[in-house]
Amino acid sequence: MVRTYLDWAASSPPSKTILAAAAECAASSFANPSSHHADGKTAAASLETSRGVFARLLSCDAKQVVFTSGGSESDSIPLLSLLLYPHPGSLVISATEHDAVYEQAQLLRNFGWTLRFVKPDTNGIIEPQAIAGALSQDTALVAVMAVNNETGAINPVKEILDAIKRSDIKKIPSLHCDAVQAFGKIPLTATILGANTIALTAHKLGGPRGIGALFLQRPIKNIMVGGGQEFDVRAGTQNVAGAFAFAQAASVAVASLEERRLHAQNLMARLLEGIALIPGALPVPLCRTPRDGRYSPYIASMSFPGLAGETMVRILDDEGISISTGSACASAKKERRVMDAMDLDRDISLAAVRVSTGNATTPGDIDSFLEHAQAAYKRYKT
Amino acid sequence: MVRTYLDWAASSPPSKTILAAAAECAASSFANPSSHHADGKTAAASLETSRGVFARLLSCDAKQVVFTSGGSESDSIPLLSLLLYPHPGSLVISATEHDAVYEQAQLLRNFGWTLRFVKPDTNGIIEPQAIAGALSQDTALVAVMAVNNETGAINPVKEILDAIKRSDIKKIPSLHCDAVQAFGKIPLTATILGANTIALTAHKLGGPRGIGALFLQRPIKNIMVGGGQEFDVRAGTQNVAGAFAFAQAASVAVASLEERRLHAQNLMARLLEGIALIPGALPVPLCRTPRDGRYSPYIASMSFPGLAGETMVRILDDEGISISTGSACASAKKERRVMDAMDLDRDISLAAVRVSTGNATTPGDIDSFLEHAQAAYKRYKT
Repeated sequence: MVRTYLDWAASSPPSKTILAAAAECAASSFANPSSHHADGKTAAASLETSRGVFARLLSCDAKQVVFTSGGSESDSIPLLSLLLYPHPGSLVISATEHDAVYEQAQLLRNFGWTLRFVKPDTNGIIEPQAIAGALSQDTALVAVMAVNNETGAINPVKEILDAIKRSDIKKIPSLHCDAVQAFGKIPLTATILGANTIALTAHKLGGPRGIGALFLQRPIKNIMVGGGQEFDVRAGTQNVAGAFAFAQAASVAVASLEERRLHAQNLMARLLEGIALIPGALPVPLCRTPRDGRYSPYIASMSFPGLAGETMVRILDDEGISISTGSACASAKKERRVMDAMDLDRDISLAAVRVSTGNATTPGDIDSFLEHAQAAYKRYKT
Repeated sequence: MVRTYLDWAASSPPSKTILAAAAECAASSFANPSSHHADGKTAAASLETSRGVFARLLSCDAKQVVFTSGGSESDSIPLLSLLLYPHPGSLVISATEHDAVYEQAQLLRNFGWTLRFVKPDTNGIIEPQAIAGALSQDTALVAVMAVNNETGAINPVKEILDAIKRSDIKKIPSLHCDAVQAFGKIPLTATILGANTIALTAHKLGGPRGIGALFLQRPIKNIMVGGGQEFDVRAGTQNVAGAFAFAQAASVAVASLEERRLHAQNLMARLLEGIALIPGALPVPLCRTPRDGRYSPYIASMSFPGLAGETMVRILDDEGISISTGSACASAKKERRVMDAMDLDRDISLAAVRVSTGNATTPGDIDSFLEHAQAAYKRYKT
């Protein structure tokens, strides 16, 4: 059975061309980039070329790019670095963050840090004034993701930074932005975001697993230390071939960003127009329109009240269609944290599913989802 | 120029067969293993198959194996988990540990932990009684590597554990073992080592970079948290293809361990017999004999007093031979920490280089090194 994959936000199929090129890179740049001999220098040169790609794509300095093992680690490093501060303070965290930020922030409570979670508006978007209003003089870090992984909501990160700067806080806190679902999908440079730290990962845009990047406006100290690699921010022998593959995937994604975005927009319009035709089905957030620019065109949630989201996922899975209820990382949990933060009725949030697309998604895939979802809803709705 | 690579302890050339198979795994297991649909389950099944390989190779339970991003992270997790203890205590660390343990332990000082470093004997080997003698009632963790990455010294980890158990310490501390240079090279299972936590990495034995594993006798809490992957020990979407490649590389290495070890022993005997014939050159430690079972046959250090190790590395590099002065990870540092811990004379330690071999190393490679090293020493010795 040829399956219909509509869970690109969880992980995207990697490009076979890039995987093959990465295997060649792994073979030719096999040495340790920290080694002083020619083999090591070959590996180091490859790594620095990849770093340069990110510097260009993010419009920043190469020294501001650190390779990590993925998005979760890139999210954790700025938060865990707070433990090296002389005294604990407070964090202001958007309530719709990915677990990599949300749970990591919770852990800091063990060390005396206080947290303030900022709920989004009913559209799922974090308001600049809400962030500014949650700040206190001891706030060391604010975290707001660029694109929410469940609703696709695009947060106004730059405006949030402006609101922070306009506040009466004496020491401007650091702004961390998880851009895992944004990079290569919506226009984004370090300047556009304005954040101090930005987390990226390869496997959401056609690259392999196990490689990510962290933009650092200024150097920070990581709590994980060792051999001093990556400007002393991220210890461990660098994954040269992974960085190469990520750079390739990111280059392709950014170069074809507008073309792919148009494609995604058309698919999204088709999807949400189709949902509007299914009696009882609702987009989530409820306000979202088929070509709504406030949301990533790659991600949408929708609800089929009276049919649990998990049941819908299972029914469609049996019919060869892969969707999810939300974040794959949180899929073991029964909670719907992001939807709850939007004050969505529980009968809507528990009946919500997420559809996310990529460059290989076709209109036929969307039609197939709509057809099967409608039939399942009609049959199993309680 | 075909180069002679004798720096396998820094990183080994990956197997092209395994890289190609890993690329296929990345394509077929492209989904997120946490996803509940069939695509996710395919990825999860691949991951669990790889985990099962390690359970078999380490003679442990699959739930005791956690995939990480590499050796450094596998070393850091058990040390950083101490920060979640209610009160700081002390650590006993072998003075010859890799920076991933040594520097990580140093960082814990910031949090009130005290460190006691245990020097090896003059042969570079950590003595069980020395570890036992350094313990105190508040010692929470002891770290001793299985095979030293500079000298090849094999530490008696099991005997160290026995000595700890025989001590008058009421609460037996956890024993962490960095087995990065040992796994797949000398006989090793979780039982043989007896350690509570064991760090492994793929790229030292023909696997790719960016993937490692951590054996955990009992579950521990990691300070980096997120989506709850890897039994809640290591957050982040799992690197399924990396785990697959690591499992393949580890299987091959363990299956051919005796054959490869014999090959390495013969190369090592050839190397050390050759060194003995170069006037002035010395093995490090000085006691090491050509077929000395106290050392890994894959790694040896040797000194050319009167010629700085760094100079020797550069000269041989120009002549197409890749060796190192010691740990690649510490190559930016001028210190010779491991050799200093052995109380080696500075004129010997600063003139030391490391030669490390792998399954593709030939007797001709050793002869080439000996010939060029002897000529360089004769010409440039001061």
